[in-house]
Amino acid sequence: MDIVLFTDFGSSDIYLGQVKSVLHRLAPRAAVIDLANDLPPLNARASAHLLDALKNGFPEGSVFLCVVDPGVGTDRDTVVLDADSRCYVGPDNGLLSVVAARATAVKLSSIAWRPAGLSDSFHGRDLFAPVVARIAAGTLPPDQLRPLSALARSFGADDLEEIIYVDHYGNACTGIRSEHAGADRLLMAKGHRVAGARVFGEVPQGTPLWYANSHGLVEIAVNRGSAAQAFGLRVGDPVNWVD
Amino acid sequence: MDIVLFTDFGSSDIYLGQVKSVLHRLAPRAAVIDLANDLPPLNARASAHLLDALKNGFPEGSVFLCVVDPGVGTDRDTVVLDADSRCYVGPDNGLLSVVAARATAVKLSSIAWRPAGLSDSFHGRDLFAPVVARIAAGTLPPDQLRPLSALARSFGADDLEEIIYVDHYGNACTGIRSEHAGADRLLMAKGHRVAGARVFGEVPQGTPLWYANSHGLVEIAVNRGSAAQAFGLRVGDPVNWVD
Amino acid sequence: MDIVLFTDFGSSDIYLGQVKSVLHRLAPRAAVIDLANDLPPLNARASAHLLDALKNGFPEGSVFLCVVDPGVGTDRDTVVLDADSRCYVGPDNGLLSVVAARATAVKLSSIAWRPAGLSDSFHGRDLFAPVVARIAAGTLPPDQLRPLSALARSFGADDLEEIIYVDHYGNACTGIRSEHAGADRLLMAKGHRVAGARVFGEVPQGTPLWYANSHGLVEIAVNRGSAAQAFGLRVGDPVNWVD
Repeated sequence: MDIVLFTDFGSSDIYLGQVKSVLHRLAPRAAVIDLANDLPPLNARASAHLLDALKNGFPEGSVFLCVVDPGVGTDRDTVVLDADSRCYVGPDNGLLSVVAARATAVKLSSIAWRPAGLSDSFHGRDLFAPVVARIAAGTLPPDQLRPLSALARSFGADDLEEIIYVDHYGNACTGIRSEHAGADRLLMAKGHRVAGARVFGEVPQGTPLWYANSHGLVEIAVNRGSAAQAFGLRVGDPVNWVD
Repeated sequence: MDIVLFTDFGSSDIYLGQVKSVLHRLAPRAAVIDLANDLPPLNARASAHLLDALKNGFPEGSVFLCVVDPGVGTDRDTVVLDADSRCYVGPDNGLLSVVAARATAVKLSSIAWRPAGLSDSFHGRDLFAPVVARIAAGTLPPDQLRPLSALARSFGADDLEEIIYVDHYGNACTGIRSEHAGADRLLMAKGHRVAGARVFGEVPQGTPLWYANSHGLVEIAVNRGSAAQAFGLRVGDPVNWVD
Repeated sequence: MDIVLFTDFGSSDIYLGQVKSVLHRLAPRAAVIDLANDLPPLNARASAHLLDALKNGFPEGSVFLCVVDPGVGTDRDTVVLDADSRCYVGPDNGLLSVVAARATAVKLSSIAWRPAGLSDSFHGRDLFAPVVARIAAGTLPPDQLRPLSALARSFGADDLEEIIYVDHYGNACTGIRSEHAGADRLLMAKGHRVAGARVFGEVPQGTPLWYANSHGLVEIAVNRGSAAQAFGLRVGDPVNWVD
């Protein structure tokens, strides 16, 4: 089974390598794919919507290690979510809740196991990584999980009319699924009205557009420019359709 | 066969993981090496020269996935270039053209195959990655390629007297091959005259120098400092020899 | 044997891929783990302390490729350090010296071998990577090493009362081992007195704390904030206990 990393550990920082060493030791045959390691550090809600959109690019059976966890070391619970043939492991702070709310077949567990040397501040390495590795390797003893009836925190199944991710090109992705977006509608963001287009090259250089991005969300861009810079867009900013 | 990534997808962004998932699915035995994933986003010309300099560090048989592609979704063509025992896959916007122009044995093809769910904005994942993976795995059906007589856009075989890459130390690499540089010549950049040296440690701290870098190009640096910051150098800035 | 990278090559730059190509060619079965590739470029002392703290997360037998090497191309020597069942390869500029000074069983060698096409500026790729790969693969001819009686430069075994690393959350790690830190002591940094806590969530939002981090060092943080930003902390800044 592949292991997919979806974290705020920082792709250029010292935490990922420690996590990968654990994964390699306990699941040496699993491929480990870095999907996202620079998620906005304190925003479980935005990343919960992004996770639901991106999961489909990965094969059934994939195990996602999901960490955006400002509450590490407090009494927030930890979760294993089996949802529509993929598995997600992370804190019970809403990060897995949009996937759970939209899935057809859902099974929830909390992690009963605690490792001997559990640190107070790095459950990604000490708790989540061993569980993810053992699930991927098929070696997790069943008594390390405990049935859970519901998530402690859920953001629900609805679209999120906010910016949820800004990429390095300056494109600003919203939590609105593009299947819910009529091509002729105008999107309002930071006081700007933005028209839709199929692709950047269809509008003149420097012109803003919204379009259905490659993972099925409505995204705001500027052809050969940065929408984030032009409009001052940041994760959490509200957007809405102009009727 | 190894797969080498040479893109502007951003090493800390959400695109590489999606590409690598495709590569892993279709070529599970290939090693995937991240050569460069933070190339200047809109500048195929600079990166075309960098690719030619860096390719030699990789074994014969390597397959390069090359994407700097602001025209994705428009009618620009897609190319497979076989050149001197290495293979390059990317858009026909000049990115592969310096390698092609300098190679001895060249075979060009365009990609006839189109996947079922081709997105408008992410051909790196949907089109180039599957072709690269199948070439590396030896499973590309020959009818997915179509002979191509010439590239639509070429930057030619000549050196480029410009800054083509600035690294995180602040060293500024030019498109001038060091075999064409006499050690006693002065290089002019942003109004500064820079003398050559063999290595940083040969000049006093804080002193600028140009030197033949480890991939065979003329590079401007400051010993224990940042040439980019000291001179305000950016990709695209012209440089020239003082005669 | 696993290979662990501990360098200042830049995780988003063009150097790591060249190093990894060499490692893959000469040690195709070794796992290569990126521990840290954005170490402060010119500061071997800070990173020497960080290396000693982080090494314990990796299995015995691991081979560390360690490069923070502003003196590349000058006459600084190169070292292989065997210390307590792990191996470290790097420049003899102090980077390996804290591990060496604190280890129980130490064997030092210098690298006698020189490759045919050794560049002046990229010993990480041309000299250190081949040696690391051959050690990991068990194929290093013994005559490529030469016994060394002592390091040319050593920072010693003592704790370092300075900031040695700032992470992307803005947490500032010191070179003080937390086993030497009484929980009720106050730490002074940039004129601020900081009290200790077990974990971020134990202090109110926006409040600074010091805590024993997950690799055993004293670290300064702000709950849901950035200590680096709040106090202007940078690598090299002194800290000290208030008695």
